[in-house]
Amino acid sequence: MGQTKAERTRKLIITEAARIFNQKGYAGTSMNDIMKATGLSKGGLYGNFGNKEQIAVAAFEHAVGLVTEEVRERTRISKHPVDKLKAVVSFYRERILDPPVEGGCPIQNTSIDADDNNPVLREHVITAVDQWKSRMVYVLEKGKSLDQVKGEIDSEKFATQFIGTLEGGIMLAQLYKDVHYFDTMAEVLLQMIESLTD
Amino acid sequence: MGQTKAERTRKLIITEAARIFNQKGYAGTSMNDIMKATGLSKGGLYGNFGNKEQIAVAAFEHAVGLVTEEVRERTRISKHPVDKLKAVVSFYRERILDPPVEGGCPIQNTSIDADDNNPVLREHVITAVDQWKSRMVYVLEKGKSLDQVKGEIDSEKFATQFIGTLEGGIMLAQLYKDVHYFDTMAEVLLQMIESLTD
Repeated sequence: MGQTKAERTRKLIITEAARIFNQKGYAGTSMNDIMKATGLSKGGLYGNFGNKEQIAVAAFEHAVGLVTEEVRERTRISKHPVDKLKAVVSFYRERILDPPVEGGCPIQNTSIDADDNNPVLREHVITAVDQWKSRMVYVLEKGKSLDQVKGEIDSEKFATQFIGTLEGGIMLAQLYKDVHYFDTMAEVLLQMIESLTD
Repeated sequence: MGQTKAERTRKLIITEAARIFNQKGYAGTSMNDIMKATGLSKGGLYGNFGNKEQIAVAAFEHAVGLVTEEVRERTRISKHPVDKLKAVVSFYRERILDPPVEGGCPIQNTSIDADDNNPVLREHVITAVDQWKSRMVYVLEKGKSLDQVKGEIDSEKFATQFIGTLEGGIMLAQLYKDVHYFDTMAEVLLQMIESLTD
């Protein structure tokens, strides 16, 4: 089924805005930047979104969705939680300097950007991290029920530590523009993954 | 020795700008914000700094200096590398939601802010992380020479992993405004520290 012109316009705004917000941040992105990137007039933007914050929220959700979808493509082919988690590490390793959305990890960028200034956007980041954690907890708990993961593993704690360590690796690799920093952090992640099994 | 009026003015600009940049980011901070916070005129600012970037660089160095000084106060009382590193974890744990500079870790905030947009500021962040790593490598190598740290420890790698994990913990705790997230990451840091000795 084809998209209507209105749907295509909305999608164009979100796609371009995601790229710009993820690199320049909320305050650094102007409606003018989005007008230029989309070729739309101010009226074209405001016909679809009430304000910059609404565009930023839709752009963030789109960016997180793109990353999540790419990660899922890598992990769904594995059955074992250990293999799924290793596939997550490989994904970030490969895409660290060529990420699905230019500018890097939208959760990290938007988190730092929004934590002091933008409560609405911050809530969306929290929800995205909560959902990421929940997916990981689900995989680990299922693994426990199948004796693939040690019963004593605290899945909630593991998920927080895995995400935190991964984000630290992304930060350093993006700062230095050097995958070596991610590889060094990946060693910590792989040790964590090994600790799941006997 | 007293400061001259010019020195006091420069210091006022840097102190206020550090607080604002660390919360609002580079693009989110205007010369107007700094004028308001300092009570200075535009001329007063430009009399001391050529442009916003020069203020941001001085503010970043000041912010990193404040954090470094507070960390050093905690670590200098310990002799053993293990105790020094534990003191670093305690410092961040205590100050995670009440940091020396409002807005959190200046290295993290400025890193995310500058990695795509501001090569000058980015170079200053890289230098700050390099220096942080060097101090840690120095402490570990000295510890190795005194048999306080296992000889097989790769100090460079350890420092990168420690800083990356710490930054991941800071990110999550700042996002959720909840020290629990830092505590969870601190467990990883404490395991790393334990691995230094037999």
